[in-house]
Formats: sequence, C-alpha cells, structure tokens
Amino acid sequence: MVDAVLERFFSLAKKRAEPLGEHYQHLWGLLERNTQGGKRFRPRMVMAAYSGLGGTDLEAAAYVGASFELLHTALIVHDDVIDRDFVRRGIPNISGTYRDHAVDRGASVEIAEHRGVSAAVIAGDLALFNSYRLMERSGVAAAMRDRLLEVLDEAMFASAAGELIDVDFSIDPHTPVVEDILQMERLKTAVYSFEAPLQAGAILAGASEQIVATLGDFGREIGIAYQIVDDVLGVFGEESFTGKTTIGDLREGKRTVLISFARATPQWEELRHLIGKHDLTEAEAQTARDMLEECGARTFADDLVRGCAQRALDLLAEPHMPEALRAELHPVAATVLERMR
Amino acid sequence: MVDAVLERFFSLAKKRAEPLGEHYQHLWGLLERNTQGGKRFRPRMVMAAYSGLGGTDLEAAAYVGASFELLHTALIVHDDVIDRDFVRRGIPNISGTYRDHAVDRGASVEIAEHRGVSAAVIAGDLALFNSYRLMERSGVAAAMRDRLLEVLDEAMFASAAGELIDVDFSIDPHTPVVEDILQMERLKTAVYSFEAPLQAGAILAGASEQIVATLGDFGREIGIAYQIVDDVLGVFGEESFTGKTTIGDLREGKRTVLISFARATPQWEELRHLIGKHDLTEAEAQTARDMLEECGARTFADDLVRGCAQRALDLLAEPHMPEALRAELHPVAATVLERMR
Repeated sequence: MVDAVLERFFSLAKKRAEPLGEHYQHLWGLLERNTQGGKRFRPRMVMAAYSGLGGTDLEAAAYVGASFELLHTALIVHDDVIDRDFVRRGIPNISGTYRDHAVDRGASVEIAEHRGVSAAVIAGDLALFNSYRLMERSGVAAAMRDRLLEVLDEAMFASAAGELIDVDFSIDPHTPVVEDILQMERLKTAVYSFEAPLQAGAILAGASEQIVATLGDFGREIGIAYQIVDDVLGVFGEESFTGKTTIGDLREGKRTVLISFARATPQWEELRHLIGKHDLTEAEAQTARDMLEECGARTFADDLVRGCAQRALDLLAEPHMPEALRAELHPVAATVLERMR
Repeated sequence: MVDAVLERFFSLAKKRAEPLGEHYQHLWGLLERNTQGGKRFRPRMVMAAYSGLGGTDLEAAAYVGASFELLHTALIVHDDVIDRDFVRRGIPNISGTYRDHAVDRGASVEIAEHRGVSAAVIAGDLALFNSYRLMERSGVAAAMRDRLLEVLDEAMFASAAGELIDVDFSIDPHTPVVEDILQMERLKTAVYSFEAPLQAGAILAGASEQIVATLGDFGREIGIAYQIVDDVLGVFGEESFTGKTTIGDLREGKRTVLISFARATPQWEELRHLIGKHDLTEAEAQTARDMLEECGARTFADDLVRGCAQRALDLLAEPHMPEALRAELHPVAATVLERMR
C-alpha cells in the first residue's frame, strides 16, 4: 500500500512536470527510482506499531509510511551530495546518473559532476518538501495530523543535527569517543528510521502517551543497535550478504565504535596506519580486522548491541505495552540481532 | 510582524538545537542571519495583496509571509551550493562562513570548502522543511490552509524546475533563445517571488478565484520584468545602487535576454569573444556594453520590460479588480520600472 501511495504521488508529479521540460520529468522519474527497491524499512516500523496497536485505517498508515520513505530518500540523496558519492549500492545514484549522461553528451568530467550534484540537490529538495506534504495529506483529523507533523519535524530536526556532527567528525583528525559516535548515529539515522516511524504509527492508532514514549525509547535502542551492527558488518560482514564491501569503511577511516574503542588499546599504535589508508590492500584489511578482534573492539561492539537489544526487549515487556504490539515488535529486535551472525 | 514571526521561530529552534551541540545551534543562528537584512520582498507581496483585498488578520498574513521568506532562504542557500558560491552580496554566505571557520582551525581549503558546502546543504534543508511548517501553522481554517499549501507547493515545484533548466543552460555551450530564458527565469524566481505570494495573500483574504487568477498573471508579468531588469542591471547598472558588480555576469557568460538577442546580430562575431571571458578587463567590459547597446540588445530588453509592465497594469485595470488592490499594487509595478533608470 505504501508502494501504491508513492506510485500515485510520482505519477501525478511526472504528469505535472511534463510541461516544464523533459529533463524535469526525467528528474522526477529518477527520484521515483530512488524510492524503489529498498526494504521499506521506515514504513514497516509505522505499520508494525500501527497494527500492533489495533489500527485499521491502512490507507492513512500508508501515507504516513510513504512520508517517512520520502524523508529517507531526501536524506540519502543529500547525504550523497555531502559525501560527493556518485554511486550507492553499486548503482549510479542521482548525481552519478546525471554525471554519466552529461559525459555521454560531451561534457568534461568536472562539469558533468557539477551537473550531477546540482540535480541531486534539487531532487533531494523535492523529496524533502513532499515528505511533509504526504504526511499532511494522510487524511486524519487536525489534532492527530498536527502531532504526526510534530514527529516528522523532530525526525528532520534530529537528522540534520546528526548529519552536521558527522561532517564535523569527518574533518576532525581526532577519533571521537564512543558516546559521541553513538549520539551522532542516533541523531543522523536512528531517530528518523526507528523512533519517529514507530511513534507515528502509535499516534495514528490513538495510543496513550505512555506507549508512544516507550516506543520512542524502544526505537532508540533498536536504532542504535542497528547502526552498530552496520558498522561491524562494514568491516567484518560478508559482501554477498550485505551488498557492501568490507574494505570501504577501513579505507575511508570511517569513525565507528570499533575504531573509537581500538584507539584506547595497545594495538592502536599499529592499527592507526591502516585506518583511513586510501590504498589499503585486502591483506592489510585482513590485518586490520584481526587487530580489531584482538584488541577487543569487535567484542565491545557486540556487547553494546546485545545491551541495546536487551533494553529494547525489557521496554517491550513493560506492563503497559499490549501483547499484540509485543508480538509485532519482537521480530524487529530479533532481526537486528540476527544480522550480527 | 514577519520579522517577529521569524524571530520567534528561530529563537525556539536555537533553544531546541542547544542540547544537540553548539555547532548545530550555530548553524541555526547562521540560517537566521541569512533571513535578515533582505528586502522582505515576498512578504511584501503577500501583504500588498492581502491588505488590498481587505484582510485584517495580520498575524496569519505574517506567517504566510514568513513561510515564503524561509522558502526564499532555502532556495538561495541551495542555489549557492549549486553554483559553489561562498559569498553573497559581498558577505560570506553559509558555505563561506563555515569554510573560513574551518580554515581558521587549520583545515585545508579543500576540506574547509567541503565542510562549508555540507553545512549549506543541511541549512537549506532546514529552511525548506520549515517554510512548509510555518505555512501550515498560519492558524487558518483547514480548507484555506490546504489552498495555501497548494500555492507553496506550486512555487517549490516551479522553482526546482527553473533551477534544473538553469543548470542545463550553464553547461550547454549554446545560448538559449529568448523565450527559453524567460521561461527559466519565470520558473526559477518569478513564481515563488511574485505569483505565489500575491496569490497566497489573496487566498488568505478570501478573494474570488478570478482575482486570485488575475493576481497570478500580474505576478508573472511583474516577476519576468523584474528578472530582465536584474539582468540589464547586471551589465549596465550602477554598483553603488545595485550592490552588484557589472562585470561578473559578463565574465561568467550568464545566459540573459541581452546575450540571447545579441547572438542573432552582426555584432555577435566580436562580442562572443568577450562574453564568458573569465579575465575580462574593465575596458573589455565597456566594449561589450557598448556593443550590447549598439546591436539593440539593451533596447530589446527595455522594450520587453515595458511590455510586461504594461500588461501588468492592464491586468490591474480589469473591472473585477478592487480599487484598493490596484492602489496597493501600482507601486509594485512602478518600482520595477524605476529600477531601470
């Protein structure tokens, strides 16, 4: 149903774009493609909370889910602008598609990249603006709509803060402490991917303040756990499973809990030459992985994840949480833990 | 009153940003500074239509005006990202401020510029999202609010299309025809600066569909005229008056009505070597200006402006337009013509 809402939205937008030029229509088509093929993670969170709390207006829930999906698209499109990435998950993203197109038409790489980044700035703006618009159009009563918009606003507010901290991290030669990395990851991703969608689903279902608050806490724990697992998989994962190389994060010197922990261990003296080495070989990457295991960083990260998951499960077990909601959200916590294996 | 709405909005945002880090709070402060000192052009349009049509809820009108002001801020901040500009009107913009700050802390220029652009992407997103939010919070009844959001949406939709066309122009070695330049300028700037704010003011005052439609047409004419005057002043203006150099557009080879007209004249053979010459001297610029006069480009542009202004005045004179509205909008048309002198 979320797909149907998005399909309708994009179909209208493309029709509306037609008289304004084929390039504009093409941009909308590309933006649509960028919302497809994902795991629909955020809509799933909305839906899990909503149906676990007895919600039945699936159309409204689909609008709320689609709104978060568009917010997600906006944030990753602009995140790619910030990182000057032209590829995501092995496929040219919006910047990359426009760049390649401009190169084909004879533009220099510099000009083509500039055009690509420009198109991505514009596309992200459209997605961001319309995430608000879809939420606003969910068709619910005014008071509820205001609360949903408040949640969306919180998500956007937090995510912008997290993105800014992440940019600061990337230019700071020092490795931040674990707490600061967790705070950044929470703000940048966990709030809009877990906390806010779960809370929106609960609000839509007419849940009590207490349940909405507990779902926010649950979402925070699960969201942080998810990010830590992501960082661990970025170094130790299996590419065939994650679709992500296990050398990119090391080469980039990405600030993660693993690296932050390792810094305070004797192994760091040797490790530091490998972290952020742009031409790291696979053999060197393996050395780095071995040392991250040896110094205890991997165990530390695993323990953090388990701690978050346990606190999340404890929150679900609180007496004011309905049984049906627990049944919906248990698998969410389980999935996060499973990815670690 | 628009200032008061914005001040309240930013004061709340900064307070909210405090626990998320001083850099984030600083970013909000910078964004606020970027909304100050302008001519409040768009709020003025809202207010002119609103009071000309007998509106009295100045608080609601101030929210609508503030919403357009934030949209304007978002669009120029991201426009600077697209153009990789670090300065606006002689003062460091958001990217420039962050860049300078990072350089002061010892970052390389490349890294500092990257941080600056990243901060501007984030700041523009916050302004864009909150322009919607301010409109949504104007406190008017649901049906009217929906129409106002529709107008804001149209403005954003058009502006994104115009920005994309402008990017395409800038990488295309050919000079577009006059109609295409006018279409781009209308979409990129005139819709959100004139048409939409005037229509929003009228809707808020409860005006008839006919008046709202005529105000849209009036806004289009005036808005296009404004853009053409801007392009003429960018070559022939007085710096002390416009605050803008009269050599920048020539050096950049900016696609304007002047250049597009000149292309089809015999003078082009000589002119083309001067337009887009990055190291154009003041003497060469003067030659270019003389030739743009001689080939008739300046007269052509002036005639276009006069034509737009006349059509705008004719629209105001239509019998269904109330006298008080005419009285409010006459000066708007006059101001545009006056800038030409």
